[in-house]
Amino acid sequence: MTDTVVSSATREVVIGFDRPFVMIGERINPTGRKLLAEEMKNGDFSRVEADALAQVAAGAHMLDVNAGVPLADEPALLARAVELVQSVTDVPLSIDSSVVDALEAGLAVYRGKALVNSVTGEEEVMERVLPLVARHGAAVVAISNDETGISEDPDVRFAVAKRIVERAADHGIPAADVVVDPLVMPIGAMGTAGQQAFRLIRRLREELKVNTTCGASNISFGLPNRHVVTGTFLAMAIGAGMTSAICNPLHTEVKNAVMAADVLMGADRDCAAWIGANRDPDAPAGARGARGERRRRRAGRA
Amino acid sequence: MTDTVVSSATREVVIGFDRPFVMIGERINPTGRKLLAEEMKNGDFSRVEADALAQVAAGAHMLDVNAGVPLADEPALLARAVELVQSVTDVPLSIDSSVVDALEAGLAVYRGKALVNSVTGEEEVMERVLPLVARHGAAVVAISNDETGISEDPDVRFAVAKRIVERAADHGIPAADVVVDPLVMPIGAMGTAGQQAFRLIRRLREELKVNTTCGASNISFGLPNRHVVTGTFLAMAIGAGMTSAICNPLHTEVKNAVMAADVLMGADRDCAAWIGANRDPDAPAGARGARGERRRRRAGRA
Repeated sequence: MTDTVVSSATREVVIGFDRPFVMIGERINPTGRKLLAEEMKNGDFSRVEADALAQVAAGAHMLDVNAGVPLADEPALLARAVELVQSVTDVPLSIDSSVVDALEAGLAVYRGKALVNSVTGEEEVMERVLPLVARHGAAVVAISNDETGISEDPDVRFAVAKRIVERAADHGIPAADVVVDPLVMPIGAMGTAGQQAFRLIRRLREELKVNTTCGASNISFGLPNRHVVTGTFLAMAIGAGMTSAICNPLHTEVKNAVMAADVLMGADRDCAAWIGANRDPDAPAGARGARGERRRRRAGRA
Repeated sequence: MTDTVVSSATREVVIGFDRPFVMIGERINPTGRKLLAEEMKNGDFSRVEADALAQVAAGAHMLDVNAGVPLADEPALLARAVELVQSVTDVPLSIDSSVVDALEAGLAVYRGKALVNSVTGEEEVMERVLPLVARHGAAVVAISNDETGISEDPDVRFAVAKRIVERAADHGIPAADVVVDPLVMPIGAMGTAGQQAFRLIRRLREELKVNTTCGASNISFGLPNRHVVTGTFLAMAIGAGMTSAICNPLHTEVKNAVMAADVLMGADRDCAAWIGANRDPDAPAGARGARGERRRRRAGRA
């Protein structure tokens, strides 16, 4: 029932319960991408543009834009990246920085209602980010950690999320504009990371009634064949009630899992998106997919 | 907490909560496989043998054996198939027929504790199948439909499952030896099929405390790229608490989704099975999977 509406100058996207899952493209982020970091620092944003177009073509409903290049003027870089991306695509953006001045610079040039990524439960961060979000009428990603770090206890993380939602309300930001990130840890380092995330996502939805997101690729960090793990995680998280994620739609395993999960949650009406994306151009009309298939016999006991 | 123990002459497999998911290979089934049906009818079981070996090599923990060839002597065929499969593999079997005499013939030659597939909630079927299961000390798949057919109401299906479990107890069969099949419908025909299954699986686990299984490929009947839909369904069903399924481990999308779901549920300790199955033989030790990867920056707010 909770809808988080974000927009560009011309397009609205709704993150919400019982709606198609929202994929927020993760690629425009120089963290760990040396070449991109170097280029952005030198004022070359051609790769940012290419990444924006490719992700939207692959099915991203929104794009995350991060300009965290070490020793660079992050506010200026982020503003420029936001302007550039908005000039080539019409999907709403998630403006991503841990530097409040950079968030402010990005919001200043943004056209539409942005998703600010992010605020934590740390007092100082909340008191700097939330007024900014309120002033711009934006939505915000709330990360469930605070001064004490990232708790391994899902109950503590839930309490932190609840506190951010309450504080946001004090600043006039409705709960529907707070999208909680339960913080996904690498499953290779912490075997309970998946179950913790699923349980927390379910509670956030059922008790706090907020939308949720996460940096999905974290879950598979360090594992072989990791995009399958990320895609499977996303499907299971969608089953638990997650409504959006920062992920890479260019990875077929990720995109397919999200689209199939939409089908299975009944959010892809008549499987239209799935059938459209997976149509075999050589198949005769009407025979698609059903040729040579069988259905396990289950009825008719003797 | 509920363990369903099945066995061959030499190997035990446990279907249970918080354990690795049990894949029951679906291939040995002439339904919709004209060539196999023809061969079996003519006494040629070479394909049965090949299918058994291939599925076990691909990771099947158990095998379903069905000999439902129209106009053939199903009890004789099923007994022969069971004997043959037990002579070439040591995984426990699910003896699958809608003909009670065939179940009886299969059980008569089976060595170990079989899974009988299946009993429904129909009075006559319960009264014929359950005594047979009890006499052989077997476990049984309980399909949640009755004389009135397959209800679209998950509450009715739950009630039918509960009735079968209670009736089984009357025959001395413990609830731990009843594996409930919530009956998975094709999502292409019924958009709510996924959510219904997930909700029912969760209730069966939490309220009835039984293990669950299903014919997984039903979900994707008629859809293009269907193995992705089946695999994604399995992962989401595992997230909801399903503990086994009749599926095809030869489909990489299915097998990968199940293995990744085990990782994400914490059932694959230290991701050992996943890493073993996905090891890149060319990667130098220690560098596997982590090379060139990045982890989204999340900490260190400024």
